[in-house]
Amino acid sequence: MNTSHSSTPKTAPKVLAFDVFGTVVDWHGGIAREVQALRPQVDGDAFALAWRAGYQPAMRRVMSGELGWTLIDDLHRLILEGIVAQFGLADLTEAEKKHLNKAWHRLQPWPDVVVGLTRLKSRHVICTLSNGNLGLLAEMAKGAGLPWDCILSAEVFRAYKPDPATYLGVAKVFDVAPADVMLVAAHQDDLAAARACGLQTAYIERPAEFGAARPKDVTPHADNTRHARDFLALADQLGC
Amino acid sequence: MNTSHSSTPKTAPKVLAFDVFGTVVDWHGGIAREVQALRPQVDGDAFALAWRAGYQPAMRRVMSGELGWTLIDDLHRLILEGIVAQFGLADLTEAEKKHLNKAWHRLQPWPDVVVGLTRLKSRHVICTLSNGNLGLLAEMAKGAGLPWDCILSAEVFRAYKPDPATYLGVAKVFDVAPADVMLVAAHQDDLAAARACGLQTAYIERPAEFGAARPKDVTPHADNTRHARDFLALADQLGC
Repeated sequence: MNTSHSSTPKTAPKVLAFDVFGTVVDWHGGIAREVQALRPQVDGDAFALAWRAGYQPAMRRVMSGELGWTLIDDLHRLILEGIVAQFGLADLTEAEKKHLNKAWHRLQPWPDVVVGLTRLKSRHVICTLSNGNLGLLAEMAKGAGLPWDCILSAEVFRAYKPDPATYLGVAKVFDVAPADVMLVAAHQDDLAAARACGLQTAYIERPAEFGAARPKDVTPHADNTRHARDFLALADQLGC
Repeated sequence: MNTSHSSTPKTAPKVLAFDVFGTVVDWHGGIAREVQALRPQVDGDAFALAWRAGYQPAMRRVMSGELGWTLIDDLHRLILEGIVAQFGLADLTEAEKKHLNKAWHRLQPWPDVVVGLTRLKSRHVICTLSNGNLGLLAEMAKGAGLPWDCILSAEVFRAYKPDPATYLGVAKVFDVAPADVMLVAAHQDDLAAARACGLQTAYIERPAEFGAARPKDVTPHADNTRHARDFLALADQLGC
């Protein structure tokens, strides 16, 4: 058991809630591959980054009230429409756009995920806490064999992360205190917002989230309850 | 393969949405056993029937607006408070009441369920569509090994069955037409409401739902797309 990050005694969380895009699945690699399968001349790396870059601004338009409540599938489509021209994809048919938009449902997990989740599930309730919609997350789980005990989403709470209603919503669903929930994510801002709500936090290194050529800073932050290379290391730390 | 009920060609549903209490799990047997484990002198059969009898009236109080939105865990507790005296259970401690109220989370599936769901999952998306709350359904699934692709609940739609928002909500979550969803239930009223929304329906015989001593009428209704003895027979009919 790797105990390098668990020297301080900590209360074991009852529920592990997982961020999904980047933490569980490789959105950059998946989107780049799928667009190149449709149009091999497109720069898949740049396309994936551009599509993902529209994600936070689109959610802000919803949370500000400018747009009504909108599922991520529909936000993905809005963003896609805004970038097709610049990537020379204006000739995509409606069927091709629909197919490409559902590439987010077909993203593949990082290599440690299925084994890691299966180990973590043995001693914890494991659920998603993603801004992705329920249908997207359920299809992804079925396709990739992700063994969630429950799929929770912004769609359930009618609010996107980092709204406190999402983090606190997980605790309410399982009738536990916020400190009994641990958010597991590869993004420090998501973890900081969860911590402000009283949740435990685990940072997962996903250095290739933005592509292998663009390694991400994965420096540990002392505020997180755990810092783990991947889900196997987290399972080690939690004794699973 | 048992094809006795599938002589008419039918479009295969993409999503199977399952009613839970009575259809998937044996609430009568589970509640009777749990109350007798706490107080052996109680008539477990009568207690289970009384607790369950309060369920529909309690949901009607919410849907009429008399009560605000309330999770089934909380409705179960309200109903429990109303029947403890008549069953000589006024001496239950708060901890015992909490434990007993969560007996609904610990209900056991009928013997065909886990194998049947696993077969059905191979060719369909399988999800719950229950008035039970998400935490209840997730704990039940974890305890009983129910392999749902997704847990959907009245809690997601902020409406109880038979409100159309629940049946149509399943189709919306999975971005399919209502006719691509089949409600699987042991209750004709639930199925009739789903059918009115355009869903396919499968009736499952659960003759012992109200106890082995009180066999239920399980006569086929011609309006249902399928009529099956249990989940194994349904899997046979759907070619799973």
